This record gives sequence, C-alpha cells and structure tokens, in this order.
Amino acid sequence: MARAGYKDWGRCDLTYVELAEGTAVAGVFTRNVCCSSEVELGRIGVQQGRARALVVNAGNSNAFTGYRGREAVEAIMAQVAGHLGCPQDQVFVSSTGVIGVPLPKDKARAGIEAALLAEPCSWEDAANTIGTTDTFAKGAMAQAVVDGRTVTLAAIIKGSGMIAPDMATMLGYIFTDVAIAPAYLQELLSAANQRTFSCITVDSDTSTSDTVLAFATGAAGNQQINCEGCPGVDAFAAALEDVCRQLAHLVVRDGEGAQKFIAVSVTGAVSDDSARRVGLSIANSPLVKTAIAGEDANWGRVVMAVGKAGEPADRDKLSIGFGGTWAAREGQPLADYDETPVAAHLKGQDISIEVDLGLGEGRATVWTCDLTHGYISINADYRS
Amino acid sequence: MARAGYKDWGRCDLTYVELAEGTAVAGVFTRNVCCSSEVELGRIGVQQGRARALVVNAGNSNAFTGYRGREAVEAIMAQVAGHLGCPQDQVFVSSTGVIGVPLPKDKARAGIEAALLAEPCSWEDAANTIGTTDTFAKGAMAQAVVDGRTVTLAAIIKGSGMIAPDMATMLGYIFTDVAIAPAYLQELLSAANQRTFSCITVDSDTSTSDTVLAFATGAAGNQQINCEGCPGVDAFAAALEDVCRQLAHLVVRDGEGAQKFIAVSVTGAVSDDSARRVGLSIANSPLVKTAIAGEDANWGRVVMAVGKAGEPADRDKLSIGFGGTWAAREGQPLADYDETPVAAHLKGQDISIEVDLGLGEGRATVWTCDLTHGYISINADYRS
Repeated sequence: MARAGYKDWGRCDLTYVELAEGTAVAGVFTRNVCCSSEVELGRIGVQQGRARALVVNAGNSNAFTGYRGREAVEAIMAQVAGHLGCPQDQVFVSSTGVIGVPLPKDKARAGIEAALLAEPCSWEDAANTIGTTDTFAKGAMAQAVVDGRTVTLAAIIKGSGMIAPDMATMLGYIFTDVAIAPAYLQELLSAANQRTFSCITVDSDTSTSDTVLAFATGAAGNQQINCEGCPGVDAFAAALEDVCRQLAHLVVRDGEGAQKFIAVSVTGAVSDDSARRVGLSIANSPLVKTAIAGEDANWGRVVMAVGKAGEPADRDKLSIGFGGTWAAREGQPLADYDETPVAAHLKGQDISIEVDLGLGEGRATVWTCDLTHGYISINADYRS
Repeated sequence: MARAGYKDWGRCDLTYVELAEGTAVAGVFTRNVCCSSEVELGRIGVQQGRARALVVNAGNSNAFTGYRGREAVEAIMAQVAGHLGCPQDQVFVSSTGVIGVPLPKDKARAGIEAALLAEPCSWEDAANTIGTTDTFAKGAMAQAVVDGRTVTLAAIIKGSGMIAPDMATMLGYIFTDVAIAPAYLQELLSAANQRTFSCITVDSDTSTSDTVLAFATGAAGNQQINCEGCPGVDAFAAALEDVCRQLAHLVVRDGEGAQKFIAVSVTGAVSDDSARRVGLSIANSPLVKTAIAGEDANWGRVVMAVGKAGEPADRDKLSIGFGGTWAAREGQPLADYDETPVAAHLKGQDISIEVDLGLGEGRATVWTCDLTHGYISINADYRS
C-alpha cells in the first residue's frame, strides 16, 4: 500500500496486491449502466480468467469521467504489467470516491511506484486502505478441505451504504489458495453473489462502481476444481458463500446511520427469485426501515411493501412476524396477538422480520439496516 | 359530513357526497396487491359506470382486515343504497388511516345517519374531513368550454406522503357537471392519471388504498362526450389533466418532512414511458433527495440514479442540469461549469433537475420532494 494522495488526507489510499502466476480470477460487477471504466475493463479482464495484480484507488471513483478516466485506468494497467512482465488485461483496477473527477494520472503513477517498493502489509491494513467513509476495517476468513488439502479464503471489503457523501461503491476482494479453473470460479462466485451481495441493501441506490473479485492462486495443490463432481467442490463452494455472506453483513452493519441489523426472511413464494424481490421491496421501504428505527412493530407497513413488490402474492394468505412471533396470519391480524415479545425483540440490535406468502416453496433472506437521522445527517447536512 | 368517531378526535371524519341521478363515474386505484376491500369493490363499481353517492372514512383504512373489513364496507353501501333507492354498486366507499383494524360497523352506521341529516358543507370542509395527517386542505378547480357550455371541475384530495404514522393513502375526488359517457370519462381519467398522479412520489411506498374517482353529473347540458372527435373533448381533457396535476402537486408539497418541491424533467429517452421510469428512479433515490435537502448540486448521484433505472441509457450521451444550467454534458463534467447559478437555484423552494439521455424523443416530468430529518421524525420517532 502507498499514499497516492488522491485526497488531502494523511493516509494510505492506494492498495497493490501481487498475485502468483497462474492465479484464476472471477468477478461480479454493478449493473448500473453508468458504470466506471474500471468496471468495464474489469469485465473484459475476467473473461480471460487470469490475474497477476490488483490495484485499488480510494478517494476518487473515476466514474463519469469519459475518455480521460479510461486513459487513467489503462495507464495504471500498463505500468503494472510492465513491472510484472504480464499481459495488461491481467491487472485489475478499482477506484472508489468522488464521481466526475478524472483520476489524476501523475498521482497514480507515483503511488504505484511507491507501492511496488513497499513492504507487504496486513489484511487489516489493506482493508483500511481501500475504505473511504467506512467506520471500521472489514474482512472475513474461511477454510475448506478440498481433495485432502486445507484451502483458505481471506477477503476484504469496503462500503458504508452504497454511497457516502460524494463517495460511492462497494468493493470486495476474496483471495484463496485453492486450485480452480477460472470459469468454474466464476460460476461459484456468481452463485454465492446471488445469495449474499445481491441480497443486501442499505438505501436502494446502486453504485456506479460496485465490484467483487475472487482470486485463486492454486498454491494449495489440490486437484484443480473444474466440474460439478470434483472432489471438495461442495466444501469450497460453501466456504466461498460463507465468506461472501460475512462480507455482505459487514457492509450492512456499517450502513450509513445504521443502528440495527435487519434480516428479512421470505418463505412461501412462487420461486426463490420472487422471494428475494419481495424481501428487497421490504428492505428498501423507507417506511419499514423507519418503523424499525422507531422500534415499532408496524406490520401494516410490511404488508404494504409486500403488495407493492410486483410479485405474486395473495393478501388473504399472507403472514407477518417479528423475531419469530406472528403478528398477522393469513390476511388478518391475530386475535390473540401479544406484542410483548415483539416489543422486546425490536429493542435489540439484531432484528428479524418473517414473511410467509403461503403460495409455494420459494424462499430467500435479505439483509438491511434501519433508516435513521444519521443517514440524513451524513447525506444532507453537508455541502460539496 | 359527520363525526363517526373512528378515532378519539373531536373532528368530522366521515364525508358523504350525494350525486345527481345518472352521474357518470370513472376511477383509478392502487396497484398494491394487498389492497383494501374498498378498492376491490370500487373497481367493480366503476365497471357499471354510474354513481349516486360517495362515502369517505378517515382514521381507519380498513386494509388487511379480511372478511370483517369487507362486511363493513358492504354494510355502508347497503345503508346508503337503501336511503337513495339505488343499486348498491352505485355507492362508492373509501377509507384511510390505520391498517389492520376492521372498520367498526356501528360507528359507520351512526355516522352515516348523522351525515344524511347534515347541512351541505363547503369543498374546504370536505377536504379537511377526508384528511388524516395532512397539514392543509387540498383542492383544485378548472373550467372548460364544451359544446358551447362552460363546464366546471371541482376536486379534493388527501395524502401527505403515501403514508403518515400508521396512516396510509392518497384519496382524490373530482366532481364535474359535464355530460360524458362513463367509458369515455374512464379513458380521459386514466390518461390524465398517467401524466399526473403516476408521476409523483414522496417515498416510493405504494399505499394499499390509493384511489382517484371522477364523477360527472351531466348538469352542464352539453352534447354528451362519447368519442374522440366530440365537441369540446380536448378542452375538457385538458381541464381534467390540469385539475389532476394541481392535486398531484399539492400532495407532494405536503409530503412528509418536505421542504422543497422538485420537478425532474427527462428528455431524449427511447419512449415517454421509459423517460417516466428514469425520472422516478431519480425521484425515489434517497441520495438524490438528501442532496437536494442539503442544497448540494451533486449531479453524480443523478448519474447513479439514471444508471440503476433499468432503462436504456448511454453514459457517454447523458447530460445533467439543475435549474436550467448544465453541469455535465454527454458523459463528462463541463470544463467551464460555473456552479454559482446552480447554488442559487438550490437555495430556493422550487427545484428543477434536467436530464437528457440523448437517445430519442421520449420525455416525461415527475415530481417529488426532498428527504429530510422531518421524514425520519414523522415515521421513526414514534411508537404505535
């Protein structure tokens, strides 16, 4: 890591990770069509499947900066590829911070020169260096036995809501020594993403730069995973999803202004995907999120959010609960509903909302945080 | 109007409107699938096209109350139909307020008995009586010359955001003396709705009870409007849309915690409908709304909201402005961007955001308000 000085702050803001030759890479990226050049070039990079280095710039997202932004990223890729003697598309670059200001090429060049000479740093230092307005360093670890070898996953992520004042982006990086074919790593990452990062929301706003990359060096020496029936594939897939879920939860816990962590579990949907969309409609509802902030068991707002989701639902089969206690069953408030355990549950920091649609076998859990005065203060009580 | 006493408040909360025989009716209703029995029965009622009476209950939305809620509405319809000697489906009922508590039948019956004996009241009194947490009475008037006759439209609406603490619903009623066939009134109302009520958002949350009804008595004596080429149809359609837009703007101006009224104009989209969806993505973005609250010309957040809308957009053709001043053109910040006029514009109460997608001829304007500490206070600093 190094100090590129993208902002006027006395901290490291450029992270450089060198990867062993032959490292497999997979990635998932924002679907925001106004995405940054980093995201465009990263999408191209993962197609060839190999990575030698990762560079993360903090303090400037380089998004919506036109051809000048793209040139800045290509200059970084060329500089690192020259140093390592590798193809340029094996260098992955992410940037996070203000939108609309081209990344300064001179600062990036000097920062990378310094980083190439720097001592290796800890995971925690790296997690701090990729952060912007994050309030704590976020990392996760997991292990799995694959083909008789213990493989390890280490991961870091940044993000505090989809965005902080003028600062955007969730960036996550997973590093593992497992031997795996790039295409299969991509398949496992995409599947894990669907049940983890795609199931969190802080404020419904989708960054222009969101990126999660997984790098696998192969140093563990297991027989390469390249098919569904390969030895240890299930164990590795579970460990990968475990790490992704840990990272995803950390982002929500550091959500802007968040005081409570909320799990929304939807069952009885017509499909898992439909359940996820109903869950996100609840998790994105300002009225549900403010009710939880106010420790108010306002299940009528949950009904409203189910109904507006645009997914199959039948009002007269719908059941709503908090913390394992049903408040309404099959379209009506429970006659003997005792709010005491619900009120006690809502006073805690970890909240669960249960919704049963009563239609099918589809299920999903999504995670969010409450909407508080803190969110308004961070995003409105402020002039750029 | 009368005091049904749906809540413990010393005010009128039941509005009764008697309509001349032969009055045509049209309506648009919430798409929330968890809608109230009032909405279900109203949808059936407008199909036969005639109305003799309207009853509006304030203080209880009667939503999510199962068969008991439906019985309460049917009892009101039967009571009024018996009094007027008309078919039951010509009586329209709306309710607004707490979700999940069946409307008390005895209070409704006594309230209607009192209302049938009451003196006629002013439009302003009626607007106050249908309100819940609204902070002012909302009404609109327009006139048009149709077939040589001056026809008048008078309208009232309630709503302060989609919802207030435990209180839901936008309810709007338009009364006119024009002679028009019910099917054609429905066609004109649906078209006006698409460009007015469907283009406003306070908090993206869709009530379970939203209803707009238009009643036309025919007393103006014009040749009945029943076709596209009928005399005066364009003048009447324009007056109807004018009234709908006035009402829609009043709801946004009374949005929970609102300090600024925001018009988002989208041009250059592939279609009008696509432009409307891009506009709503911007108008629903918590980050755009908090930026306006903070008087911050944060056009990067507008870029983000365009990109997440799921509609055709090309980052490199996108232009963003505030109050008529471009901040970014064709995918890049303007080199000579002077923020002075934009900063002055954002200090005002009426804000405009201009977005040009540069793709086609589609255009739309949507209206919203800013997101402030007031919204959080109303919805979170509160226990039911």
